[in-house]
Amino acid sequence: MTTPAPNPTIRRLDVASPVPADIDIANAVEPLHIADIAAELGVPPEHYDLYGKYKAKVLLSVLDKLQGQQDGYYVVVGGITPTPLGEGKSTTTVGLCQALGAFLDKKVVTCVRQPSQGPTFGIKGGAAGGGYSQVIPMDEFNLHMTGDIHAITAANNLLAAAIDTRIFHEASQSDKALFNRLCPANKEGKRRFADVMLRRLIKLGISKTDPDELTPEEVRRFARLDIDPASITWRRVMDVNDRFLRKITVGQGPDEKGMVRETGFDISVASEIMAVLALTTSLADMRERLGRMVIGNSKAGEPVTADDLGLGGALTVLMKDAIHPTLMQTLEGTPVLVHAGPFANIAHGNSSIVADKIALKLVGKGGFVVTEAGFGADIGTEKFMDIKCRYSGLTPQCAIIVATIRALKMHGGGPDVVAGKPLDHAYVSENVTLVEAGCVNLAKHISNTKGYGVNVVVAINKFATDTDAEMEVVKKAAMAAGAFDAVVCSHHAHGGKGAVDLGVAVQRACESQAEPLKFLYPLDSSIKEKIESIAKFYGASGVEYSEQAEKQIEMYTKQGFSNLPICMAKTQYSFSHVPSMKGAPSDFVLPIRDVRASIGAGFIYPLVGTMSTMPGLPTRPCFYEIDIDTATGKVMGLS
Amino acid sequence: MTTPAPNPTIRRLDVASPVPADIDIANAVEPLHIADIAAELGVPPEHYDLYGKYKAKVLLSVLDKLQGQQDGYYVVVGGITPTPLGEGKSTTTVGLCQALGAFLDKKVVTCVRQPSQGPTFGIKGGAAGGGYSQVIPMDEFNLHMTGDIHAITAANNLLAAAIDTRIFHEASQSDKALFNRLCPANKEGKRRFADVMLRRLIKLGISKTDPDELTPEEVRRFARLDIDPASITWRRVMDVNDRFLRKITVGQGPDEKGMVRETGFDISVASEIMAVLALTTSLADMRERLGRMVIGNSKAGEPVTADDLGLGGALTVLMKDAIHPTLMQTLEGTPVLVHAGPFANIAHGNSSIVADKIALKLVGKGGFVVTEAGFGADIGTEKFMDIKCRYSGLTPQCAIIVATIRALKMHGGGPDVVAGKPLDHAYVSENVTLVEAGCVNLAKHISNTKGYGVNVVVAINKFATDTDAEMEVVKKAAMAAGAFDAVVCSHHAHGGKGAVDLGVAVQRACESQAEPLKFLYPLDSSIKEKIESIAKFYGASGVEYSEQAEKQIEMYTKQGFSNLPICMAKTQYSFSHVPSMKGAPSDFVLPIRDVRASIGAGFIYPLVGTMSTMPGLPTRPCFYEIDIDTATGKVMGLS
Repeated sequence: MTTPAPNPTIRRLDVASPVPADIDIANAVEPLHIADIAAELGVPPEHYDLYGKYKAKVLLSVLDKLQGQQDGYYVVVGGITPTPLGEGKSTTTVGLCQALGAFLDKKVVTCVRQPSQGPTFGIKGGAAGGGYSQVIPMDEFNLHMTGDIHAITAANNLLAAAIDTRIFHEASQSDKALFNRLCPANKEGKRRFADVMLRRLIKLGISKTDPDELTPEEVRRFARLDIDPASITWRRVMDVNDRFLRKITVGQGPDEKGMVRETGFDISVASEIMAVLALTTSLADMRERLGRMVIGNSKAGEPVTADDLGLGGALTVLMKDAIHPTLMQTLEGTPVLVHAGPFANIAHGNSSIVADKIALKLVGKGGFVVTEAGFGADIGTEKFMDIKCRYSGLTPQCAIIVATIRALKMHGGGPDVVAGKPLDHAYVSENVTLVEAGCVNLAKHISNTKGYGVNVVVAINKFATDTDAEMEVVKKAAMAAGAFDAVVCSHHAHGGKGAVDLGVAVQRACESQAEPLKFLYPLDSSIKEKIESIAKFYGASGVEYSEQAEKQIEMYTKQGFSNLPICMAKTQYSFSHVPSMKGAPSDFVLPIRDVRASIGAGFIYPLVGTMSTMPGLPTRPCFYEIDIDTATGKVMGLS
Repeated sequence: MTTPAPNPTIRRLDVASPVPADIDIANAVEPLHIADIAAELGVPPEHYDLYGKYKAKVLLSVLDKLQGQQDGYYVVVGGITPTPLGEGKSTTTVGLCQALGAFLDKKVVTCVRQPSQGPTFGIKGGAAGGGYSQVIPMDEFNLHMTGDIHAITAANNLLAAAIDTRIFHEASQSDKALFNRLCPANKEGKRRFADVMLRRLIKLGISKTDPDELTPEEVRRFARLDIDPASITWRRVMDVNDRFLRKITVGQGPDEKGMVRETGFDISVASEIMAVLALTTSLADMRERLGRMVIGNSKAGEPVTADDLGLGGALTVLMKDAIHPTLMQTLEGTPVLVHAGPFANIAHGNSSIVADKIALKLVGKGGFVVTEAGFGADIGTEKFMDIKCRYSGLTPQCAIIVATIRALKMHGGGPDVVAGKPLDHAYVSENVTLVEAGCVNLAKHISNTKGYGVNVVVAINKFATDTDAEMEVVKKAAMAAGAFDAVVCSHHAHGGKGAVDLGVAVQRACESQAEPLKFLYPLDSSIKEKIESIAKFYGASGVEYSEQAEKQIEMYTKQGFSNLPICMAKTQYSFSHVPSMKGAPSDFVLPIRDVRASIGAGFIYPLVGTMSTMPGLPTRPCFYEIDIDTATGKVMGLS
């Protein structure tokens, strides 16, 4: 039995059982032309640019047009502490939107992150949801998309090249020669400062604008960045899983005259520029953030920025198209905005502010924007609230916590869950005791999230082997912990239809929400006070700082960066720093190994343990199966 | 006085004198929507994909639709041996097309290369023609365009990561473990080969298709590529001028267990994948070329290919959009196809075969396709004929040689021309004697090019300081050397109107051309015989091979690659290997320092001297002036 479609772009799915492979489901559906999706959503043609038939960049200019419009409801999707297999947060995000748009007749936009190409060809495969809850076309979502990550790679590496080359040129030139090259005389013998140079002059407290008026001392201060090579934190990036680039030595060519240096590559989505893109609010704001990114210190200990290197403008030019979110569609024809994909540990793991802002205006009053926060709620939702919402000024009306019986059993004492190995019997047959014991993890995520003053809805992402008794236990535990509602859903198997109850619960939660957002910490606390607030939120009994961490905190405080929010780089597999501590541990002291900063993006990130920022390839990477049908042009083997 | 526009997309220019800066000319014109250009050219909407408002990818599918159509005239633009300032070959290519399309009422398509982003932010600036003969929008042409170079970077580096990781995994695993990981058993305990693995089995002469049937010896041969690290020729790439990556050591991280290796990065346009893109003729052909790219040898001396590493399909998937050329427009509204941009020394320096093929069908009988060949005619035109036309099967009706009074004076004995330094007096005042003496260079390019059996038209690209007497000398010398015609043109100052005489001459040349194309050498000669034919064509008295070159020639011959065409890697600043030997030298022996191969692209490239494949940044790179007007989104400071 099918209900009549509420709008012309809605597509009804014929679902099969058992659920076919993701790529087969995706390939079986002919996507609508994205212009149809845009029209239905109310984006006029002058406010988007097509990128082929199924993708369009929605231009920020649409925000001016929609200025008077009221915002829709804002829903964030987090999860309990996951197993290494993932608990279906993306799938739930997509499935809920399919329910709201295709079955509950609501205006809705899904806001998700752009995946890195590294995992697509490596181990994990793509990231467009799963089963009957997916973003399509799957290949366009996972490959290149509209080039945003490529733009980040280009910008990141231009800055890296500029750093090493500047050190090289400063090493061989006198102050005067350097200055003459930086401000060359034109045919009439006249010099001028480039606009970006005026920023450096202001920073140095030099109020002159005519190069010829600088004293030799001012010439030296202006022209010589005097970068301390040991202090450089800016690394090169590549959107490929290339473990052999984790640590490298550069500058070994004969022309570089022995100026070798140890450095390395991260995967592109770990670039600070990705975090800037996710947190920026306008083109002008992005220009400022990119310019103030700190790449290291001068030998005197002053932070050196992209603008000091003359690059803030050029980086913005490279990123000028990337700032516009990309419109795509779900399997059921509801609109999706894909934008940014910062790491969820060394960065804040949420899709972009501008996409959410545009979406909230487009759906308008009574509509819904559902956005996903990476990792468990201790990381993703915390950063969503304390970093993303702080910068955007937006307030969510509902926070979803996705739970699975599988992960709850693990928290209740079930055996290890390891990717690539068969699941233990405990996970595929009823075991109410394990589920019950595991609900401490869910309960802590609920109470933590409620602390922000927002209604919490638990989405129980049902697998075929889960039993009613198991789910009943979870519902009860959730309500006891203060959830607004707890709902079983089956969108993976049934598409939006499987998440209608969740949609109804979310709607009720949004409509009954009135409280303002309560941040976990005020910005004007000290760096240590802020770290300690978050540690307490995790359940830690205290915090321990390494010598290096103490040194860095002192330095950032001295440099005037202590009023930034904190972005904790912690494992997603436990509330604590120890992945094996499941449930809701409280008997741990959180160790802060090091403290780093993304000044342009706008946060300090303490490292709790070692974070890998460049994945590797296994012996048999996904790419073995990926090919193209050269007759039809169809991509095969994407997973 | 303006003539009426022959078709609705033609735009009349108001030219100013002196000629304003390129970016100011480009910004003063409102480009037409690219759908209008496509419509006028006869590309139906189902055969192109929009990328914003001013760019569209013309899909190869249009070739099927146009199958019955006759080809237009095919014109290649080469040049005399240039000064370091360049002699306006791109500008002439664009200006000629503006003349043919906007003043002579011809159907015309300009085919040009996509520029690298490295120089755009480095020294040289962008590359969209100049003055009143440009491709617009200039910023979209120079930045990202439709992402083709980014796709090449991604594909090149995925292959690089796969090489090092494969060596790493082979080092620590037994034959059996390796095989079990490459062909894992599924839930039913069944193994299968991925499609790409079947290619390796065929190469090894193993006709089995069931993994369980391989003997231990076959398992070893299949699973162990046994790459000799010292033989690896595949380098990583980046579209940034990053000199510190020219020579690096990778693998220094603790997890890579001491498997360090010296290697380096090239600029992306130097990737073999760029050469493949330029020389491919279809998606199926690209799949084969990418799969057979050789990355190095096994320890037994067998070539190891991308398909051996399991990557031919995945690389094609990464390149599936890049294979479609990008439609843009000139200042006067004529269509341009931008596609590929291989290096002109270590590769063949010509834009793509597929773009030319599409263009020839689109203009049809009586129409014109004008395509540029990089560097002087000794390199660009030679490779156009002997490599590009050999692979495409196309025959040009006219070859243009662009000459400037400036460069001819240099060849006649004028002082050095150095970029960034003021020109000597000889170059900005009349000096007929120098011009006359320099014409030996032009004459040799003419007779060389005529040798292919094609009509040669000399385009004298007029500068403001050139005199009538100087130009008269050039015309006479050109006709004496056998040119079909020699024409003065001023398209830089006047747009298409300044190249109308050139357009008329080109039309006459095309209409009177009947000879078939005569290649310089047959493919079945030995590698040395082919090298010697080209050396003779340069004017060399002989060829000298280094020990290394001899060794490589022997190896490639043994490996079965001796029937490929030759792509000489030689300086563009002389017919010889010595940049300071101007004019038409004949008293030199061409030294072959080394010989390399791009097997996937399909050529052997002997190195005559040292070729830099990674430029650097100067003290004050172009990026200092590049910024964005955050209110309007307009890019400023591109040069």
